[in-house]
Amino acid sequence: MSKKMNILMFSGDFDKALAALVLANSARELEVEVTMFFAFWGLFLVRDPEKVTSDDKTAYEKMFGMMTPKGPEELPLSRMNMAGLGKQMLLDMMEDDKTPSLTDFLNGARKKGVKFYGCKLSVDVMGFKEDELIPEVKIITAKEYLGDALASDMQLFI
Amino acid sequence: MSKKMNILMFSGDFDKALAALVLANSARELEVEVTMFFAFWGLFLVRDPEKVTSDDKTAYEKMFGMMTPKGPEELPLSRMNMAGLGKQMLLDMMEDDKTPSLTDFLNGARKKGVKFYGCKLSVDVMGFKEDELIPEVKIITAKEYLGDALASDMQLFI
Amino acid sequence: MSKKMNILMFSGDFDKALAALVLANSARELEVEVTMFFAFWGLFLVRDPEKVTSDDKTAYEKMFGMMTPKGPEELPLSRMNMAGLGKQMLLDMMEDDKTPSLTDFLNGARKKGVKFYGCKLSVDVMGFKEDELIPEVKIITAKEYLGDALASDMQLFI
Repeated sequence: MSKKMNILMFSGDFDKALAALVLANSARELEVEVTMFFAFWGLFLVRDPEKVTSDDKTAYEKMFGMMTPKGPEELPLSRMNMAGLGKQMLLDMMEDDKTPSLTDFLNGARKKGVKFYGCKLSVDVMGFKEDELIPEVKIITAKEYLGDALASDMQLFI
Repeated sequence: MSKKMNILMFSGDFDKALAALVLANSARELEVEVTMFFAFWGLFLVRDPEKVTSDDKTAYEKMFGMMTPKGPEELPLSRMNMAGLGKQMLLDMMEDDKTPSLTDFLNGARKKGVKFYGCKLSVDVMGFKEDELIPEVKIITAKEYLGDALASDMQLFI
Repeated sequence: MSKKMNILMFSGDFDKALAALVLANSARELEVEVTMFFAFWGLFLVRDPEKVTSDDKTAYEKMFGMMTPKGPEELPLSRMNMAGLGKQMLLDMMEDDKTPSLTDFLNGARKKGVKFYGCKLSVDVMGFKEDELIPEVKIITAKEYLGDALASDMQLFI
């Protein structure tokens, strides 16, 4: 019987997104089913930088959309970010080791059939529109997330 | 057979508390049993702002009790708090969408029968007294938490 | 049948390391099998402060190794660290309550047979050598971690 992993991606940090996506890609290579549920800051990772809109948003939602990271490359580190210096250092160290980029891991997860969901409450509050996110993301409620998570063999809150 | 979710609430951030309580409320509506175990900074969420005491505390414990958030409304954001400005923006955005407040979600969880536990080691170190916390909170050890968590269908560390 | 807990230790914070090690020690006392997988900042906890080397490292890796915490006692708090002041306050409060130190909990976990693993991708990127870590740590891949985690009764991402 095949196994199932569910990740609730709450954080919008580069390093935590990298950890989550390394796990998601590795799990798919082991033929484990993978669900990622993006909530709050985690939604930044699945924003499509080419599709930022201001239509049908309140003033706050427009400002929030502009101030916050758009897609994987703009995410800061959870610590030692040092106004981007620490992040650049980590990126250089990753390149030295020929580690794929965060975008590569995100695209790998998309190609390998990871299921992507966005949290309805979060997109409503933050004012994100479904078509501002990468097309794989389907918006679901916390209850739908719970149904999937409770049927999984492991659940992580990242 | 009914399912069971266990949340270890370690963080004392407004946004993470909101995520945890949205999950707890949603799970109860699905008739899932829910345990929340508050440890470290997570205890701030279940402090009763009306019942802060200095009795029988060391100087450090008194200072610590005064410096730290008392109950849900005083919790800061985990990021973009910006001395309260970012949090106010989020509160306004929640109100625009008619999202219930963090206090509403906490009270919902209390009414819906979520089980609340506090970590004995944490309350001892921080000097909190059981009667400074909301009455639903029962103090238990890490071992008692583990017994409950290992018997659950999902466990999250938030 | 014996139970099994798996902790992915991602964070390099003193307070989160304390939480993880309290759980690991308590679980072992209940005869629960425990695996800890150290990734990213979590690796700081299992660095041996006596064995920092510069051999066979790039300039960045040397700098990174020097700038970052070496072992349990150098870890900062995840919040209220206040340049070490908040951490000192917490250490004093722990001592007042005769709580063992973080090093005690780490040594307890080592003696009680907690299994320690380090993340291969993380040590490669950060330039840590296996012999800079405490001897219990074995380097494994994300896939090997997943195999262990999926066979466990509970998994936490800390």
